[in-house]
Amino acid sequence: MLYAQVHLTLPPWIHQAVEPDLVCADDESKMALAIRLSRINVDRRTGGPFGAAIFSETGRLVSVGVNRVVPLSCSVAHAEMMAFMTAQHRLQRFRLDLDDGHAFTLATSSQPCCQCFGATVWSGVRRLLIGARAEDVEELTEFDEGPLPADWVGELERRGIEVRRDIGREAAREVLAMYAATGGTAY
Amino acid sequence: MLYAQVHLTLPPWIHQAVEPDLVCADDESKMALAIRLSRINVDRRTGGPFGAAIFSETGRLVSVGVNRVVPLSCSVAHAEMMAFMTAQHRLQRFRLDLDDGHAFTLATSSQPCCQCFGATVWSGVRRLLIGARAEDVEELTEFDEGPLPADWVGELERRGIEVRRDIGREAAREVLAMYAATGGTAY
Repeated sequence: MLYAQVHLTLPPWIHQAVEPDLVCADDESKMALAIRLSRINVDRRTGGPFGAAIFSETGRLVSVGVNRVVPLSCSVAHAEMMAFMTAQHRLQRFRLDLDDGHAFTLATSSQPCCQCFGATVWSGVRRLLIGARAEDVEELTEFDEGPLPADWVGELERRGIEVRRDIGREAAREVLAMYAATGGTAY
Repeated sequence: MLYAQVHLTLPPWIHQAVEPDLVCADDESKMALAIRLSRINVDRRTGGPFGAAIFSETGRLVSVGVNRVVPLSCSVAHAEMMAFMTAQHRLQRFRLDLDDGHAFTLATSSQPCCQCFGATVWSGVRRLLIGARAEDVEELTEFDEGPLPADWVGELERRGIEVRRDIGREAAREVLAMYAATGGTAY
């Protein structure tokens, strides 16, 4: 029988771990949430060592995501993808910047892989904050970031998506190292 | 309140339109299904002009996908992504080639965009059949394929994913032209 539906879920702990009315005024506090989510996801063994969060222009939290690939049997369920989908679902917009042009920000604990890079282009976020670099991910874990355009930052910037890197990089690296040290598998 | 779940659905007509035990021995018949799905999706106005299907090594149909971006308010819900997720959900594997190394084939009516290109890398398919080219999509519709690595075919082939292009290209182009002619919007 053909499957016609997919149901993707974040772990139940997010409701305890995240204050839904959170406002993060600066980029560092936005990233701190993304990294904290990545750490809890490892501690609770609910997925890979990656977290993400989307904020409105005023810094209000819109959605969160963590990696859910193995628990959900779904290669699409990266942290950034979960954050994009839950934000769009909440706002009922297939692009976050549709209509009103608000500048939503995605904070992600590690550089987006080839899939999440592409998804970022269509998501409607206007700012991308990155913690650990691809080389950190590949140095500290066995995860692979996949093939990106040579000038991936330029490609995003030319499409109106501002990119800021190395925010909380050391804290993000710690979570990656912790995942590897506790025997977390890469896939 | 934070959204912690996303529910993605294919249109109900797929159960009437697709024989679940279908076996497609050759690449042309696999692609014919993907293109037929893209056409029905336009006719029924259930999404954009893109269809996809995944087959096992023996040619047995495993999953289908059509573009559902606007109806589901979800920029992730491209035809290929829906096919990857429903196949992985059905087989309960986060990579289709996990364990037994079977060579699953994705047939997609148009060249994967930057998001679906990256998702293909993690999906576990070993063969990629493409109908219309990116330049067909951009010539006939206002859809944008997004930034890809310069040698995207080589990147896939180096990761063990065989790429065949221009299968049913004219039939796939017809659906794109029909979508544009009936006032279908691009996004």
